[in-house]
Amino acid sequence: MKDLSAMLALLALLPSLVWAQQYPDCQHGPLANNSVCNTGLSPRERAQGLINAMTVGEKLNLTHNNSPGVARLGLPSYNWWGEALHGVAAAPGVNFSDSGEWSYATSFPQPITMTAAFDNGLLYAIGDVIATEARAYNNANRSGLDYWTPDINPFRDPRWGRGQETPGEDTYVVKQYIDNYVTGLQGGHNPATYKVIATCKHFVAYNMEGWQGNNRYGYDAIVSTQDLAEYYMQPSQQCARDTKVASIMYSYNAINGIPACANPYNIDSILRGHWNWTADGNYITSDCTAIQNMFTDHHAFDSRQQTVGAALNAGVDVDCGFYNPTYLSSALSLGLIEESTLDQSLLRLYSGLVRAGYFDPPNTPWRHLTWKNVSTPKAEDLALKVAEEGIVLLKNNGVLPVTISEDKNLTVLLVGGWINATTQLQGNYAGPARTLVSPWMALQNVSNLETIVVQWYESPLIRAIDTQPDLILWIDSTNEAAAEGEDRNTIRWDNLQIDAVEMLATSGIPLIAVHMGEQVDDSAFLSNPNVSAVVWAGYPGMLGGQALVNVLTGKVAPAARLPLTQYPTDYVDLVPMTDMSFRPNSTTGNPGRTYKWYDNATVEFGYGLHYTNFSTAITSPSTSSFDIQSLVSACGTYAHADQCPFRPYSNTTSSLSVQVSNTGSTGSDFVALAFVSGNYGPAPYPIKSLVAYERLFGIGPGKSQTANLNITLGGLSRHDENGNQILYPGSYSILVDVPTQSTWNFTLTGTQYMMDEWPQA
Amino acid sequence: MKDLSAMLALLALLPSLVWAQQYPDCQHGPLANNSVCNTGLSPRERAQGLINAMTVGEKLNLTHNNSPGVARLGLPSYNWWGEALHGVAAAPGVNFSDSGEWSYATSFPQPITMTAAFDNGLLYAIGDVIATEARAYNNANRSGLDYWTPDINPFRDPRWGRGQETPGEDTYVVKQYIDNYVTGLQGGHNPATYKVIATCKHFVAYNMEGWQGNNRYGYDAIVSTQDLAEYYMQPSQQCARDTKVASIMYSYNAINGIPACANPYNIDSILRGHWNWTADGNYITSDCTAIQNMFTDHHAFDSRQQTVGAALNAGVDVDCGFYNPTYLSSALSLGLIEESTLDQSLLRLYSGLVRAGYFDPPNTPWRHLTWKNVSTPKAEDLALKVAEEGIVLLKNNGVLPVTISEDKNLTVLLVGGWINATTQLQGNYAGPARTLVSPWMALQNVSNLETIVVQWYESPLIRAIDTQPDLILWIDSTNEAAAEGEDRNTIRWDNLQIDAVEMLATSGIPLIAVHMGEQVDDSAFLSNPNVSAVVWAGYPGMLGGQALVNVLTGKVAPAARLPLTQYPTDYVDLVPMTDMSFRPNSTTGNPGRTYKWYDNATVEFGYGLHYTNFSTAITSPSTSSFDIQSLVSACGTYAHADQCPFRPYSNTTSSLSVQVSNTGSTGSDFVALAFVSGNYGPAPYPIKSLVAYERLFGIGPGKSQTANLNITLGGLSRHDENGNQILYPGSYSILVDVPTQSTWNFTLTGTQYMMDEWPQA
Repeated sequence: MKDLSAMLALLALLPSLVWAQQYPDCQHGPLANNSVCNTGLSPRERAQGLINAMTVGEKLNLTHNNSPGVARLGLPSYNWWGEALHGVAAAPGVNFSDSGEWSYATSFPQPITMTAAFDNGLLYAIGDVIATEARAYNNANRSGLDYWTPDINPFRDPRWGRGQETPGEDTYVVKQYIDNYVTGLQGGHNPATYKVIATCKHFVAYNMEGWQGNNRYGYDAIVSTQDLAEYYMQPSQQCARDTKVASIMYSYNAINGIPACANPYNIDSILRGHWNWTADGNYITSDCTAIQNMFTDHHAFDSRQQTVGAALNAGVDVDCGFYNPTYLSSALSLGLIEESTLDQSLLRLYSGLVRAGYFDPPNTPWRHLTWKNVSTPKAEDLALKVAEEGIVLLKNNGVLPVTISEDKNLTVLLVGGWINATTQLQGNYAGPARTLVSPWMALQNVSNLETIVVQWYESPLIRAIDTQPDLILWIDSTNEAAAEGEDRNTIRWDNLQIDAVEMLATSGIPLIAVHMGEQVDDSAFLSNPNVSAVVWAGYPGMLGGQALVNVLTGKVAPAARLPLTQYPTDYVDLVPMTDMSFRPNSTTGNPGRTYKWYDNATVEFGYGLHYTNFSTAITSPSTSSFDIQSLVSACGTYAHADQCPFRPYSNTTSSLSVQVSNTGSTGSDFVALAFVSGNYGPAPYPIKSLVAYERLFGIGPGKSQTANLNITLGGLSRHDENGNQILYPGSYSILVDVPTQSTWNFTLTGTQYMMDEWPQA
Repeated sequence: MKDLSAMLALLALLPSLVWAQQYPDCQHGPLANNSVCNTGLSPRERAQGLINAMTVGEKLNLTHNNSPGVARLGLPSYNWWGEALHGVAAAPGVNFSDSGEWSYATSFPQPITMTAAFDNGLLYAIGDVIATEARAYNNANRSGLDYWTPDINPFRDPRWGRGQETPGEDTYVVKQYIDNYVTGLQGGHNPATYKVIATCKHFVAYNMEGWQGNNRYGYDAIVSTQDLAEYYMQPSQQCARDTKVASIMYSYNAINGIPACANPYNIDSILRGHWNWTADGNYITSDCTAIQNMFTDHHAFDSRQQTVGAALNAGVDVDCGFYNPTYLSSALSLGLIEESTLDQSLLRLYSGLVRAGYFDPPNTPWRHLTWKNVSTPKAEDLALKVAEEGIVLLKNNGVLPVTISEDKNLTVLLVGGWINATTQLQGNYAGPARTLVSPWMALQNVSNLETIVVQWYESPLIRAIDTQPDLILWIDSTNEAAAEGEDRNTIRWDNLQIDAVEMLATSGIPLIAVHMGEQVDDSAFLSNPNVSAVVWAGYPGMLGGQALVNVLTGKVAPAARLPLTQYPTDYVDLVPMTDMSFRPNSTTGNPGRTYKWYDNATVEFGYGLHYTNFSTAITSPSTSSFDIQSLVSACGTYAHADQCPFRPYSNTTSSLSVQVSNTGSTGSDFVALAFVSGNYGPAPYPIKSLVAYERLFGIGPGKSQTANLNITLGGLSRHDENGNQILYPGSYSILVDVPTQSTWNFTLTGTQYMMDEWPQA
């Protein structure tokens, strides 16, 4: 929702909008004798009992996010729309106080900065903390149990206005993010009781907001089967098939001519069919207004009744909007839907709520959580740690970490639009935070350091340089805002920003450029020998300024890696946003998308420097030739062959070992990245593909640690033009680190193996 | 400045940024014996005395907006950058308190709504009030005497992000706005002492922010000589040649390859040459960073020193930016500028300040004004009146004015994003206001009326309709923001907005759609018989909600006219913003720009309905044939032939008389508009051109008033391909009202007369 904040600012005078997310009274209320309150039954049986008690009119009322409940039955009103992208956040279904208790929650960095840490444990911990705080809000009747997070659409074009919400461009990283974060949110893998109900959004191929007159509400994403299977669908497969997310949101766009919310191929063939996402409680919501958009923007149906009917019949259970409550009743009268379809939809919705303990007694899990469990010191420490782990060092001529003597104050000239950034550090879909620490605020607590702060386009800048500060710290973001509903036209710094940095750097005073916010081309800073260091921080959250200062002063050593490609400025001139394809195409001029297909990046995906040096060595397996059929037959317990580990050692329980040695003098974490490369499977061949990573912690100077890189057979596979996932015989290389430090070559022999046969449209 | 608000939020710690706009001490300070303090000398002599006392280093320090002054001489620091587009506004040179005294000023509607009133007296009165309040702020050392207002670039493309700042698309209206508003600001026509120094901006052909990757900082406007002379230059001609504005701002863009800030043709040949804008104190400022942009974005010079030198040599006296203080000194050393050029520049700057009384004793004009003179009840009444006069009625099936019975409360369902708009009513370049009255707030004070307010995308809307309110009032603006630095891609309502209005209107309850903010295509509302009325209000200022309610309830009868064309949605697909031309062009597909050249508008320029009916009758002159040479020879006292009135009656002192009769039953103002049309001069011929207007006040039912429409010879002229303004023989028609109600045809005979020979580049 682009105008969510404006909408929330409007007072709502009708009774149904009074906040009331309280639990139904299963002890004394009208439902007490309904089987929905019988904890001895299955979620499905319990939900069925509830639905059996409803009239058809009552059922029709419950088909949208702002559910009025059924007063007669003692079923409270319930807003399915919660947000928690990186902390419990503002949403129609979340009620913050203006001050005091319940006026904030822990506000973590945006996913784009989270995933730069390449630390799976961290992602799980974030999800767990958010779910704890969400449960506390729920116990206070301030939120529901449903949160429409995470945003799993990979960041396929640098102009996209919502890229900050995502874990970056790489499907492997996206899948790791989903598996850890969603599992943290839901309270474990496929738990008996959901801690909260997570919602993977947006299914599918959604990543264009508003670009040169194209509008997400009516956009038709034309996607090849190959791109769909190998890229766009991969995150949803992780959510639905593997991580067992409770809920999925359908997107605004059409896919190859058919709007997402009425797309039987994607819903029946893929999601519920091929991936078997059919557990009780697996409900689908539309994105907000997306059902309406099928009529107003896609013009996919002749009437509004046909529109709501198509969505319900396709399996969309919640209309975030007013179309269902307005038109579903007449759709039923017209015979466009069956009551049994409505029942099936409500069964999914209420099975989910049952499984979240909504109809359970107050002594069930998480019901003890209170305000004391929100934004705790431990949670805020985690928010700081995530930011520290997520800050990427892109250039350093030795000025970093900044040395501060106790003898003489270090004078730092602070310049740029984000030097005192607070809410900007949070990015979008944020909730209020207890505190927001800007870089300048954090610097003021550093001993033996004083700051000079100057306005941007004014002469005091010159006079400030004339005072000869010891260091210039420039902190800014692109002026071209990316936002929901609005993509960018450029991916460059303003010429004025570059000019000012050049002017400052020419002074001879060491200058550190800190790149916040959206991705833009840093080449002017990277290539300028007078710019001493370049640091990328994205959206580092409530304590982002503190994290930045901790990294700059060496309290924390940076070890993050860029989870996306930093493209050169002219990249956006070469390929329109609306070209959804990835492979370079000499006819269209598309130079390729993502590090897998584009080889002219300003900063490569996975790049990141340290305050020390590391060397890597792959522990050589005794053999470098593997028979495909043997690999597959050893998979045994894995439900899907692509999840089966590739174990190259004769000891078949080990994943690939990489010894990482700190050859410098500063202790540091290190992210071991493994890519696969080779000319196997269908041409053209990707440059390389990430297949495993592990973050190693606190490797002391002169010390080594071993990364165990769990490469799966899926990581070695390719998708053919029909979307089939196949393990091909051929020559493979494993490349460790960016740029590559170590390589191991091997071959797969035998005949190709069909790992996943893709359902054809 | 796009990021002005962010910039202002940064604290500035250097001493020079402490607020200090105080007057120099001419009694006891070091300047007491300098001739600048001698009120018996001319402004030029006084300024020369000041400059004579300066070292060259001191002079170099004074060449930018945030002037440090010369402490040695007792010349205070001074920030030339004030803003007052529609009230004293936030700017680096204006210092509001956080609360209490000096925390606000009268905030009028935006110019686009002001000019919809077609009331010249009102424009003068607004300028006068703003100058009074500006003087009060200045007396409190809270602002300077320079205000960078008005924005005179005509609104040539509906996507332009700054159109709201302008008086619309028509050069005649723009010129009337300038003449009245600037004269009000400056304290009279070419006054001995300026009340404030007004600055016409931006010279020239500036009206593209950021559109599909084009950026105003480096944009090269390719403009034909004909379009330049007849359209883009007309407002500046009014400012410089006729209204005698004190100051002019140069724009970011280049014109035909040469950046505005170093364009000798525009500056020397046109502005200072052809228009003789050479009075003492006629200074030029760059737009903020525009000098820097000549280097960074236009790449017009090889070095920064050449850049600042070119600007100074071209006649730009103030750099709003840091380039002059940084690089002008070395430019001087390199011989790129002469000290005498610097002296000439400072002479203009300080002559202007002298003429504003800056070096005068405290008993001089306007120095008595205090906080008591700010946002007075009278000033706020004017703000209300401007909004009331500027609201345009586009459609009415009789529902308006709303009838409220004393017997039974009228229930109004309020829907839409702007129902509780407050700061949105102000638009950009606004200052804080004492109060901001939203439509909803104003409705709550209407007796016998109750409101139901609902959220936008939620089911309560449906339930609210089910309660059968008497009236639905939908108030919204397009969701696609226009902003400085950001043009729009579309000129349509969201399909969701149209759909919601259609849904509401289908209920059979009368629905009034109020179109606020940017111009978008209302055709869906105008053509929908279920939409009872459509009202346009633009940005109606601090009391805009009250003004709207006063119009809706009939307390005030609407009489405004749209000062711009409302284009159909697909218009923007037909012509890129970067096509600067006006005439339809079958090769490029340009369908024509403005009502003069485009004939397929959704709502025509000048359209507006009333609560009554009016008929018009032109008082027929005794002759319908006029000899060009006789007309010209009768001009006598006019400095420029285009200003000479066309007097069609034998009584040669009268302008064209139009009798306006109110044939309905409601008293109302009426705006008499006169256009000229005909196939004379160079082909192609404009459809028509506005040549005169007059707003008549309070015409009672059954009553008549006479409009005296002062058509000039300039209004009858055309511009040829070389930009020459020529009076041509031919057949002319005067068309009164929109749509045309009365016509008078006449001919001009004799040979064509060269009214203004345009200097060729």
